[in-house]
Amino acid sequence: MTQRLDVVGLGNAIVDVIARTNDAFLARHGLAKGAMTLVDAARADQLYADMGPAIEASGGSAANTMVGVAALGGSAGYMGRVFADQLGQVFRHDINAAGVRFDTPAAREGEPTARCLVFVTPDAQRTMQTHLGACVDFGPGDVDPVQIGAARIVYLEGYLWDRPMAKEAFRKAMRLARAGGAKVALTLSDAFCVDRHRAEFRALIADGVDIVFANEAEILSLWEEKDFDAAIARCDARGGRTWAVTRSEKGSVVVGSGLVQHVPADKVERLVDTTGAGDLYAAGFLLGMARERPLAACAALGHACAAEVISHYGARPEADLRPLAASRLG
Amino acid sequence: MTQRLDVVGLGNAIVDVIARTNDAFLARHGLAKGAMTLVDAARADQLYADMGPAIEASGGSAANTMVGVAALGGSAGYMGRVFADQLGQVFRHDINAAGVRFDTPAAREGEPTARCLVFVTPDAQRTMQTHLGACVDFGPGDVDPVQIGAARIVYLEGYLWDRPMAKEAFRKAMRLARAGGAKVALTLSDAFCVDRHRAEFRALIADGVDIVFANEAEILSLWEEKDFDAAIARCDARGGRTWAVTRSEKGSVVVGSGLVQHVPADKVERLVDTTGAGDLYAAGFLLGMARERPLAACAALGHACAAEVISHYGARPEADLRPLAASRLG
Repeated sequence: MTQRLDVVGLGNAIVDVIARTNDAFLARHGLAKGAMTLVDAARADQLYADMGPAIEASGGSAANTMVGVAALGGSAGYMGRVFADQLGQVFRHDINAAGVRFDTPAAREGEPTARCLVFVTPDAQRTMQTHLGACVDFGPGDVDPVQIGAARIVYLEGYLWDRPMAKEAFRKAMRLARAGGAKVALTLSDAFCVDRHRAEFRALIADGVDIVFANEAEILSLWEEKDFDAAIARCDARGGRTWAVTRSEKGSVVVGSGLVQHVPADKVERLVDTTGAGDLYAAGFLLGMARERPLAACAALGHACAAEVISHYGARPEADLRPLAASRLG
Repeated sequence: MTQRLDVVGLGNAIVDVIARTNDAFLARHGLAKGAMTLVDAARADQLYADMGPAIEASGGSAANTMVGVAALGGSAGYMGRVFADQLGQVFRHDINAAGVRFDTPAAREGEPTARCLVFVTPDAQRTMQTHLGACVDFGPGDVDPVQIGAARIVYLEGYLWDRPMAKEAFRKAMRLARAGGAKVALTLSDAFCVDRHRAEFRALIADGVDIVFANEAEILSLWEEKDFDAAIARCDARGGRTWAVTRSEKGSVVVGSGLVQHVPADKVERLVDTTGAGDLYAAGFLLGMARERPLAACAALGHACAAEVISHYGARPEADLRPLAASRLG
């Protein structure tokens, strides 16, 4: 019998390649600052060749979130596709070592493990260029019904929506979640991603998403609004749906339980690299939801987790987050 | 015609896999704290399986030193052996991106690129377990006479002495250096390494090493002394030989030019990870020597470089070190 899991995430399994750079570099290569752009192998190689010395660290948005849930003392599972190569081994080692269940077998044909080139500018902003590699093979066959059946919440990465097979996996996971009584959570992932899939995301949310994560740019894009409050007013919380919308240092706005609540962000002493801020906010929020805590407490835990991850390089927590869970969730 | 190079280094080309741990982990696995231990693939896999989430960063002692020389604004070359795999590509990218000339072709047969599992304890000490992988194929054929002929100083890693083919490469590089009028520098690398090769290291130094780098444990081992001053008294500086012996926060002792000089270490605000301290000290010292600066200035630059690298994770500088070179070398 499978142990109950607080959250199970599905996403692109990626190793981050992180280097500091400056705005001139972004301009020279025409990179959209703060965004995630998909690139082919040739473009990734070209950018890598011009990139400074880097460090490698396991990443992937939903994977980072699941590692956050585990670091908080929650139980988490993950599904995503790596290749049977060195970076794939690194990804598997790191997520397992963080205590997250990850059973998706490595691909043995096709492209290598996905890399995301992360360019961190002196203002701590990150600009990401992703070559999806082995992630393109992620499909419904990789969705494990037993793990989904054990989940309290199934968390889906909007980034998956870029490929047909991953979409099918996404829909299968939603069906299984509903059948098993799990809540379905979705992150909109990136404003450009929302631009590409606006109509489908709206339909998907109406059709059965219980918890929506977005940042300011993403929620504006989803509703094609220029005003934040106007966008928030369009977040439909009927049927128990919850919206958690992050606004960097301004905190987050949570729509749900008949309320619109503004929750302040945690102060950060030394802002180093904003990579993973949204992923770790989601980790805290989701664990709070899995433990059926009030929405404001969920958001507060999310902010505490985000504050930890932006105080160092890399998108996964360096610290044990269990004390945060104890203090914020009570 | 090849451009003049301040320093050319030969060493084990390694990717570091860095994770924080505690003393209980070291005890449980019987790891010698602060030392570098060679392990086979099975042992490396076993330790990796039990290691926490890690980051990957290019390493290798002499490679770190050459990156330091380049970061200081010096010109540097490197010879070492990686495999044609993902970690080999990472190593090549990082050393090239740092501005170091590195032309050794990747191996296409044999073992994968070397990994060093670096366990960092809360006291910032590092304990290293190295699986040499593709480094075992490094031999005299990899020593490029043109690059050595262009060098002011040829820097040799004591770690190479563990394998017969690398020894031959070492001797060939020494011969070529002498023929080309370059100085020969040697780091003793590790106290256990000195234990293994004491007699040969003594003979090698007497036979034609101009600059010797050691830490306290290594110099005590070399001379089989228990008292530091007694060991220093045995460092023979005739024929223009220089000894630079580091003592962590106590600074370094430099023997040469008819003097024994004590040079203080730089204050470090936030000690994070001592990996690379000796390597970066050597970088500053070597660049000073290549520029024919007084020994005390060479050591002062070494300490400034070491202070930068121990204030963050990883064995290579994160900062541009050129201002340090300007201020310390004048």
